[in-house]
Amino acid sequence: MIKVTVWNEFCHERTEEAVKKIYPEGIHKAIADFLASDEISVRCATLLDEECGLTQEVLDDTDVLIWWGHMKHHEVPDTVAARVRDSVLKGMGFVVLHSGHHSKPFRFLMGTTCNVNWREDGDFCRTWICDPSHPIAKGLGRYIEIPHEEMYTEPFGIPEPDTTLMINWYDSGEVFRSGCCYKRGYGKIFYFQPGHETYPTYYIPDVQTVIRNAVKWAAPDYRVKELICPWVPRIDNSK
Amino acid sequence: MIKVTVWNEFCHERTEEAVKKIYPEGIHKAIADFLASDEISVRCATLLDEECGLTQEVLDDTDVLIWWGHMKHHEVPDTVAARVRDSVLKGMGFVVLHSGHHSKPFRFLMGTTCNVNWREDGDFCRTWICDPSHPIAKGLGRYIEIPHEEMYTEPFGIPEPDTTLMINWYDSGEVFRSGCCYKRGYGKIFYFQPGHETYPTYYIPDVQTVIRNAVKWAAPDYRVKELICPWVPRIDNSK
Amino acid sequence: MIKVTVWNEFCHERTEEAVKKIYPEGIHKAIADFLASDEISVRCATLLDEECGLTQEVLDDTDVLIWWGHMKHHEVPDTVAARVRDSVLKGMGFVVLHSGHHSKPFRFLMGTTCNVNWREDGDFCRTWICDPSHPIAKGLGRYIEIPHEEMYTEPFGIPEPDTTLMINWYDSGEVFRSGCCYKRGYGKIFYFQPGHETYPTYYIPDVQTVIRNAVKWAAPDYRVKELICPWVPRIDNSK
Amino acid sequence: MIKVTVWNEFCHERTEEAVKKIYPEGIHKAIADFLASDEISVRCATLLDEECGLTQEVLDDTDVLIWWGHMKHHEVPDTVAARVRDSVLKGMGFVVLHSGHHSKPFRFLMGTTCNVNWREDGDFCRTWICDPSHPIAKGLGRYIEIPHEEMYTEPFGIPEPDTTLMINWYDSGEVFRSGCCYKRGYGKIFYFQPGHETYPTYYIPDVQTVIRNAVKWAAPDYRVKELICPWVPRIDNSK
Repeated sequence: MIKVTVWNEFCHERTEEAVKKIYPEGIHKAIADFLASDEISVRCATLLDEECGLTQEVLDDTDVLIWWGHMKHHEVPDTVAARVRDSVLKGMGFVVLHSGHHSKPFRFLMGTTCNVNWREDGDFCRTWICDPSHPIAKGLGRYIEIPHEEMYTEPFGIPEPDTTLMINWYDSGEVFRSGCCYKRGYGKIFYFQPGHETYPTYYIPDVQTVIRNAVKWAAPDYRVKELICPWVPRIDNSK
Repeated sequence: MIKVTVWNEFCHERTEEAVKKIYPEGIHKAIADFLASDEISVRCATLLDEECGLTQEVLDDTDVLIWWGHMKHHEVPDTVAARVRDSVLKGMGFVVLHSGHHSKPFRFLMGTTCNVNWREDGDFCRTWICDPSHPIAKGLGRYIEIPHEEMYTEPFGIPEPDTTLMINWYDSGEVFRSGCCYKRGYGKIFYFQPGHETYPTYYIPDVQTVIRNAVKWAAPDYRVKELICPWVPRIDNSK
Repeated sequence: MIKVTVWNEFCHERTEEAVKKIYPEGIHKAIADFLASDEISVRCATLLDEECGLTQEVLDDTDVLIWWGHMKHHEVPDTVAARVRDSVLKGMGFVVLHSGHHSKPFRFLMGTTCNVNWREDGDFCRTWICDPSHPIAKGLGRYIEIPHEEMYTEPFGIPEPDTTLMINWYDSGEVFRSGCCYKRGYGKIFYFQPGHETYPTYYIPDVQTVIRNAVKWAAPDYRVKELICPWVPRIDNSK
Repeated sequence: MIKVTVWNEFCHERTEEAVKKIYPEGIHKAIADFLASDEISVRCATLLDEECGLTQEVLDDTDVLIWWGHMKHHEVPDTVAARVRDSVLKGMGFVVLHSGHHSKPFRFLMGTTCNVNWREDGDFCRTWICDPSHPIAKGLGRYIEIPHEEMYTEPFGIPEPDTTLMINWYDSGEVFRSGCCYKRGYGKIFYFQPGHETYPTYYIPDVQTVIRNAVKWAAPDYRVKELICPWVPRIDNSK
């Protein structure tokens, strides 16, 4: 059983009618709904919870953390963001969605701006798969189609991905590395671009498949409790 | 002074009127013309020359080899292709253009199929730059526009590039990693997608800038004469 | 059940008394013996078999191919080596041991010399693990100790590994990237340095653990029958 | 002319006699002395200076920043460390020496613990060069020898380097990736392990060559003033 925590800042859905209509219980709930299964157990946490719902206990009990945030990145305390970063370095999987590219934990882990150029204009998007043999691509065709999506384009201010798995094509003329795999410390990280709050992206079966696959890919089979840095006794080299 | 050899199979331009009109003296001559300068000296070689014009002497006297081939990859003898590969491993720069993705020397160096999906339909192409700070992007804007180009799309059967520098967008709905940097042995390799023979791509100033930059980037300041594999005397570890 | 084929040139063990004593039935048999289990079924093939025992049928029925070769690399026909390469590109796992760094299939896949500097002098070797969270490191401590091993040292003429998992330390003063992971096409490749024929390296439990882990890591869950390169019909972009 | 700023926490040299003897004016002064030339101008800054001597003005006027720190990492304010990080992302080169692996700016840029295992015992160290063709290896032999050095060993808690250029061998039985190249944002980063304060490592000609080469390698020819993230007007795709 993989234990997933879906984190959402849960702001747009409470304050904007258009978003509330699409995700009445929040984006986190929509993601939790399609993930929950015999293999995956899901809990949710939001910015409304104390310590963002991400205490050390919760993180220690999480195999894979999914992150959606947009307008309130700055309201996530640095201590919480650092705790998430450290949990990834200790082995927790981390799936970062859409505008989460600018979240503190993701930027802490990347070390770069994670900037994108963007436009919110409902452009048609096709997400191409560069490696059909990758576990995250399992069950997908050559690409995913998203009728309307916020446009992000290059340059994307990230370190060169370990694997550039997906690239977005927008009918408005742009491209974007939209599926990026990283290993940082003992944890696996997957950034996945689709999922603007004003479109029902997380109800698209292929998008759900990607996130489900990413959870399985990122689930750790190795984890440490502390990030230690031990002194090494001199090794006898006489043998 | 950087010594460049432009290699072209020089087939289409001699046999097809449409191509001859665009490149009357061959694609190699068009490339040589815009490259030649106070900093770069250029010679050409083609499939018509003995040993493809790529004797050991020529390669040893070449800092950067540019390669254009399409229909006649199989007519390049394995020995010549291996000689090119070995020259790259010894330090020679290698700039592979367009359908050269399927050339023997490039595939020998990549170790993979280098397959692409493709369509020859004159689609509009926009080549996005993922890293404006890269030497090959010097002097370019955010993207290059190519009015008509042969479409190549993902998956592109290459090893993950050291740097994914450029990504093509086609108005027909596809994307392609069109500018890819590699280091192999002591040599630098740049694959650049634009340049179908039936379009005047190599007369576009931005395309010329890319190739000129790539030549400067790939020019070696370290080179060996032989690919050796020496036996190592035991090192005295008693001090 | 993972289907493994262990390939061995099987030369030293038949002609040299010292080697025969350590591996009386051949290195392949020693490897097959510790791999065979409820999870792994093993067959062997050698240079003595017709087509090296590596027909298309055998490769299509192999999840992971293990390779040991040394003196007779040149006797493996190019067609067989290319068939192995293509099977890897189609998804077959490939674990290359010791002097297999110079085997044709490995060099075909790397595209580089794969040269090493070396000395056969029975030096003490410690194989350090750079990432304890990697599946291939499962069950290992901080390093493996090998009482006597042939020394290989840097520079190792390989492309930068996707993951530099292990580094050898020799008491004679050298280091070597001894555990290197690659993805090529749809196949996973692991190079592992230990295993000179004159030392009983493959009887060391930690060495066996590495190879067993590597088999599980490299076993494919995606595979294609052909390496195709299809033409793409123009996509209607009017929607 | 490349403008270098050498930063040193300048603590050990003022408080410990043994260190003062080796670097009477501080490690920064020793490094500045061998770097200064017709090609490189050098200034110094230390923890004693206001804002660590690293105001925006200084960083904007610095092509390459060299960093040495050890005991006082925590005394570098987060705002200064973030300013350094951002300057690297904007294009400034960054050469991180020895215990600087744990400095805030380096860890901010890596996103990982940068932990090492270590021992201060004056072990003999041999720094092997994995790629003699790399600009940072220019003028070096196969390895550098350091009579006494603090030992750092694997696992080193860094992202997989873009280039693993050097690996340390210690006579006490350990290995360490001691020369690591990264590109982050528009800046180049080189981590180089040698340089414990109690040994005269920075007087060794080969060590000086590495640092001099690293400065030339990391000096930017592209730089931006701001890390922007612009909105993109919709591109007319009708042509």
